[in-house]
Amino acid sequence: MTSLTPSPADKFTFGLWTVGHRGRDPFGEPTRAALDLPAALQHLKALGAYGVNLHDNDLVPIDASAADRDRVVRAFRDALAASGLVVPMATANLFSDPVFRDGAFTSHDPAVRAYALQKTMRAMELGVELGAGIYVFWGGREGAEVDAAKDPVEAIRRVREAINFLCDHAIAQRYPLKFALEAKPNEPRGDLYFPTTASYLAFISSLDHPEMVGVNPEIAHEHMAGFNAYHAVAQAIEAGKLFHIDLNDQKFTRFDQDLRFGSESIKSLFFVVKLLEDYAYDGPKHFDAHAYRSEDADGVWDFARGCMRTYLLLKEKVHRFREDKEIQSILAELTRDDRSSSSMSYSRDAAVMLKHREFDRRELATRRLPYERLDQLVVDLLLGAR
Amino acid sequence: MTSLTPSPADKFTFGLWTVGHRGRDPFGEPTRAALDLPAALQHLKALGAYGVNLHDNDLVPIDASAADRDRVVRAFRDALAASGLVVPMATANLFSDPVFRDGAFTSHDPAVRAYALQKTMRAMELGVELGAGIYVFWGGREGAEVDAAKDPVEAIRRVREAINFLCDHAIAQRYPLKFALEAKPNEPRGDLYFPTTASYLAFISSLDHPEMVGVNPEIAHEHMAGFNAYHAVAQAIEAGKLFHIDLNDQKFTRFDQDLRFGSESIKSLFFVVKLLEDYAYDGPKHFDAHAYRSEDADGVWDFARGCMRTYLLLKEKVHRFREDKEIQSILAELTRDDRSSSSMSYSRDAAVMLKHREFDRRELATRRLPYERLDQLVVDLLLGAR
Amino acid sequence: MTSLTPSPADKFTFGLWTVGHRGRDPFGEPTRAALDLPAALQHLKALGAYGVNLHDNDLVPIDASAADRDRVVRAFRDALAASGLVVPMATANLFSDPVFRDGAFTSHDPAVRAYALQKTMRAMELGVELGAGIYVFWGGREGAEVDAAKDPVEAIRRVREAINFLCDHAIAQRYPLKFALEAKPNEPRGDLYFPTTASYLAFISSLDHPEMVGVNPEIAHEHMAGFNAYHAVAQAIEAGKLFHIDLNDQKFTRFDQDLRFGSESIKSLFFVVKLLEDYAYDGPKHFDAHAYRSEDADGVWDFARGCMRTYLLLKEKVHRFREDKEIQSILAELTRDDRSSSSMSYSRDAAVMLKHREFDRRELATRRLPYERLDQLVVDLLLGAR
Amino acid sequence: MTSLTPSPADKFTFGLWTVGHRGRDPFGEPTRAALDLPAALQHLKALGAYGVNLHDNDLVPIDASAADRDRVVRAFRDALAASGLVVPMATANLFSDPVFRDGAFTSHDPAVRAYALQKTMRAMELGVELGAGIYVFWGGREGAEVDAAKDPVEAIRRVREAINFLCDHAIAQRYPLKFALEAKPNEPRGDLYFPTTASYLAFISSLDHPEMVGVNPEIAHEHMAGFNAYHAVAQAIEAGKLFHIDLNDQKFTRFDQDLRFGSESIKSLFFVVKLLEDYAYDGPKHFDAHAYRSEDADGVWDFARGCMRTYLLLKEKVHRFREDKEIQSILAELTRDDRSSSSMSYSRDAAVMLKHREFDRRELATRRLPYERLDQLVVDLLLGAR
Repeated sequence: MTSLTPSPADKFTFGLWTVGHRGRDPFGEPTRAALDLPAALQHLKALGAYGVNLHDNDLVPIDASAADRDRVVRAFRDALAASGLVVPMATANLFSDPVFRDGAFTSHDPAVRAYALQKTMRAMELGVELGAGIYVFWGGREGAEVDAAKDPVEAIRRVREAINFLCDHAIAQRYPLKFALEAKPNEPRGDLYFPTTASYLAFISSLDHPEMVGVNPEIAHEHMAGFNAYHAVAQAIEAGKLFHIDLNDQKFTRFDQDLRFGSESIKSLFFVVKLLEDYAYDGPKHFDAHAYRSEDADGVWDFARGCMRTYLLLKEKVHRFREDKEIQSILAELTRDDRSSSSMSYSRDAAVMLKHREFDRRELATRRLPYERLDQLVVDLLLGAR
Repeated sequence: MTSLTPSPADKFTFGLWTVGHRGRDPFGEPTRAALDLPAALQHLKALGAYGVNLHDNDLVPIDASAADRDRVVRAFRDALAASGLVVPMATANLFSDPVFRDGAFTSHDPAVRAYALQKTMRAMELGVELGAGIYVFWGGREGAEVDAAKDPVEAIRRVREAINFLCDHAIAQRYPLKFALEAKPNEPRGDLYFPTTASYLAFISSLDHPEMVGVNPEIAHEHMAGFNAYHAVAQAIEAGKLFHIDLNDQKFTRFDQDLRFGSESIKSLFFVVKLLEDYAYDGPKHFDAHAYRSEDADGVWDFARGCMRTYLLLKEKVHRFREDKEIQSILAELTRDDRSSSSMSYSRDAAVMLKHREFDRRELATRRLPYERLDQLVVDLLLGAR
Repeated sequence: MTSLTPSPADKFTFGLWTVGHRGRDPFGEPTRAALDLPAALQHLKALGAYGVNLHDNDLVPIDASAADRDRVVRAFRDALAASGLVVPMATANLFSDPVFRDGAFTSHDPAVRAYALQKTMRAMELGVELGAGIYVFWGGREGAEVDAAKDPVEAIRRVREAINFLCDHAIAQRYPLKFALEAKPNEPRGDLYFPTTASYLAFISSLDHPEMVGVNPEIAHEHMAGFNAYHAVAQAIEAGKLFHIDLNDQKFTRFDQDLRFGSESIKSLFFVVKLLEDYAYDGPKHFDAHAYRSEDADGVWDFARGCMRTYLLLKEKVHRFREDKEIQSILAELTRDDRSSSSMSYSRDAAVMLKHREFDRRELATRRLPYERLDQLVVDLLLGAR
Repeated sequence: MTSLTPSPADKFTFGLWTVGHRGRDPFGEPTRAALDLPAALQHLKALGAYGVNLHDNDLVPIDASAADRDRVVRAFRDALAASGLVVPMATANLFSDPVFRDGAFTSHDPAVRAYALQKTMRAMELGVELGAGIYVFWGGREGAEVDAAKDPVEAIRRVREAINFLCDHAIAQRYPLKFALEAKPNEPRGDLYFPTTASYLAFISSLDHPEMVGVNPEIAHEHMAGFNAYHAVAQAIEAGKLFHIDLNDQKFTRFDQDLRFGSESIKSLFFVVKLLEDYAYDGPKHFDAHAYRSEDADGVWDFARGCMRTYLLLKEKVHRFREDKEIQSILAELTRDDRSSSSMSYSRDAAVMLKHREFDRRELATRRLPYERLDQLVVDLLLGAR
């Protein structure tokens, strides 16, 4: 039986920009006041959260002097210490300021690219100072509406140059950081150059230090492409590259909704939770979402509570799935032969034998695959009917 | 000035299953007779095509005896020689027969997986016999509707095992084949395990022989995910992995339409053609599409002509783009600084200098980016208005 | 407490083409044998179904002689009577045969349009003979890939002409039939002329006999457009036009999946069931879906059982929703003022008063809207956690 | 030969919010300064525009006193007169202010609904004062993320109550206004209650004064649903309800991009232009789009020029389409029989005759439908190759 009370052991985290989201959207003005940060940390701790994550400018204004920066950071560290929360992940905002209006690392202007590198170096430093072990890159402006203006091959090279530089820098500085790359198909740009988690998995192997770089899949971003997020996260796990994860929700193929985890896609997210539990993912579970614009300050905590509660409810369903005799019996039947079979390692002899092996194709096509039954058992289980 | 008459130098190819498509769809029966193969080859040759591609069972019935197989292949080679066409690419049909109803390489049944391997080995042999240098894998059934039934991590491992086996086999047999993996997001399965070209690019680096494996992006499959196909192909090129390409068209985020190349997405496909020409892609340009179901036998050749013609029309636009003074002047202005700037290679000194460099963020944000003008020039150019 | 055992009072129906679906798809051959019809009727009855629906050619081959037709119908009526099932709905297949390859009622060829009318008249006669009270129109081929070929304004007029003719015919024949129009955005055509339920609602008011024509929304078809099916069905109910409903499931914006009801979209379909129950919809609940292609004959019955069970499970959740004190207390708070307020009927005095009324906009914006909490309560309720 | 120089006779209009868009988006701050309104009007006039449209608060701040309001309006009228532009359309902003965070006409709070009515009455008055003949309703917040919170049947009724009230008010005030309802599938709400133009067409017939209410289709909003905008506008025209149109562009099934007209969907928009020209639509052609965020002030005028130019380029293609002998010959062949055939009006005799008419289904299926050729001719024509 899973406890439904969140605890630090669950490693639930929230971005300052998530609980601090003020309800502004493309068609509307803010509906909520700015967050009282120390109070918010206390609140999150009381709810059972483990930590908070941040962009540099969630904390330090982009125009802050060095002295102001240090003062703000000191105050935040005090508030953090008082709350008992940690900061496992940090990142830089390379998308809000007009300087990045046509990209940060992919800008045509080498001075903008250099500024983006500098801003990232400082955000890494801030992250390390706050104890973060993971540094996330989300290239919100690294894309295009006008494909005539930029060669996407060149854009990829520019991102590589930047990440290689920053890996070297982190190594030289002995920063205890791993990098996690976060993809998104579009918005705010017409198309982003790395539209899915897989785009970054492909890119990583071409880096100078691939071992220190992984991915940060975001459920909602995969849903924006109409993709099975469970499969996307599975590919990251299989590649040993799931360094961080952004848990939220979203209807398929529409604007970035950043909904409360599990509020939309109950069945799909059950499988995501199952995957994280089955493969013992032990990084932070970061809820990168925000309360509805219609919510007031209290509603933000309802939102935060809901994210964690639904995760734990689904985790409890994972336990039941494992212990459900009928489900397990079907799975055992499905994979019966598989366990006993030898692997298909290549050898010349194996190839010769295989080439002449006789198969009864029609007989093989008769094997029972009771997927309707199995799927209905999962629906029953999710609905609390078993 | 580009010639608008297709010639073998253009390397335009058609699948036997494309010009041979009989107009069957999920809601309707065939509307066209089966292809007269020798006549079709003559026809394609006369239209200016370079070659044809095939699945094993486009030519050899799945139940053919060895003798029948040899007879069919011999007749086909004769017809091919008579036509002057080549077969640059071959593949296996691992999706139509009920034996593959829950996957070929990812089936739970080791006997099905072994049968899929054997069928592929034979299709490779057939391809080599016909002179193919590229072997394409499209795993049409490697996916799921019922995620409870199969662990996608395990599914990826099974595909790797198969591809590794087949690489070893090709090497051992000294087959002059490169492998090209073709992704698709869904259909006929609810979700396919490798939904995009990037998914396969990520996978390739984990193979035993990554150097012999690349990708076969299909425009329509990227469009099914609502993706910018130009960007997807660019990532393949940047990775040195564009081994083959399937050119067709499709509205975003709907069923697999396989429309005539350029019939839907004029501007997007201009950029795809530009990319292939700019990076001197010299593999086959394969039109993996088919005539509308309402077309008769003649209409199939209208379809084939249209694919090639639109490619050449867009290629001519690429030349004009390169020679358009205003377009080139804007591009030169955009990338002016870039060419003069030194690269951003990491060194401790460079990092220290960068960390302390002063940037005037507001000034950097004022640089003119005349993308509306540039994009309109492209629209004008496409519409023949410049 | 809702019974989870289906009974005829639930009015659950299945199309002969649904339980009879043989697993053919665009990339694969049939995996299941043709249905033994009398046995299937018995089976459905035993499972608790109320009736079956059919296209003319599900029962009578398109080339049947009059004598053959009568014999087949007689045998079916006998089997029906033996089973105790009814046939509440009938329709015509105007999409499979090549004659309809460019539309039935919207064909350019007046002879094709006339043939489609004739085929429909006969299907109506068949439906009446079998006791059907609802006649559904799904214009599977009424659309286009090539917009140059047909003016969509003209296409709409042709459909109106056909429906008007058939209304007059039904009235003249004193057929006890209501017509229900079924929309779909695309597939098998690139675009269908009436893409959503709303398209038909708009069309109906322009008919000669609007009172006898309503709609047959299909959940999966609305999902294909990425639409909230609950809202679409609600508009039909509000217009008094929900004459029939097709219950199934589907991921957003992809090919027509026709999945088991509730297998994908648990939360959305909860609201659909709630709507049907809240507004006491008493027509047939038709499961227009089919078993996975990997299923064998037994799996078809698992599929049918699952559709009905999930409906009943969700109906039980509707009861709990109504009786959940916290949910109802939030809803009461939200609509508190609404019930007490007078309506906004127009009068000159009301307009003058309203024009000069003072509003405290900021105060109005502070009203609490605890939607995160409410939505989480629904998730809890669905997951069996309250 | 179409002139490519825009003139008032083309009735091209721009919203103040379009040329005045400051480049703010969900992830970024404004990149452009606020518009100098008198200069902008002069600029638009010089470019060939016919008029400008506005939301109440594009001109008058929401908190303006009556005196301030009058002063602002007077200054605007002076600037307008000086420029020679007109204001054919007005509307109210019922979406930006927090008071509308859960809807305006569909809010649960009767005071919010009353305030929305009052704000609309004043915006109508403003529109009339400025000479507008069309009043547009876009209910940006009339939707939901939390379906538990509001019954969509009730939401539709509330919108009807509001529109009925406002029709009565306009009639009583003898305002020379027609109403045009503008749909959108989602964003900023998860789902909007009237997702497409067809949803509003269906709704209009239920109003007290349907004759004064039509629709304002927006191309991009139909594209957000992945719909064929040409078909959607055609249904509006067929219903006699095309009172206004918003011309822009957008990739399918993603966030609201509001791109320059024709910048994305060249072929689709050719058909839209053809429809407007074929049916002699003579209302304003309103470009509801904005310049890319990366554009500076000059770029805004490039954007405006581009919208009008592409319309005129496509209009010129329409003329060529009409005069293209091969295209017209195919169309004549396709519709040959149609023109000669008598209509299918119902009579008992006609029905009896039709019921017994013999059709040769196979022969009817052989009629040539050279759509590949026709479509390629359109592509050639668009590319300037004929």
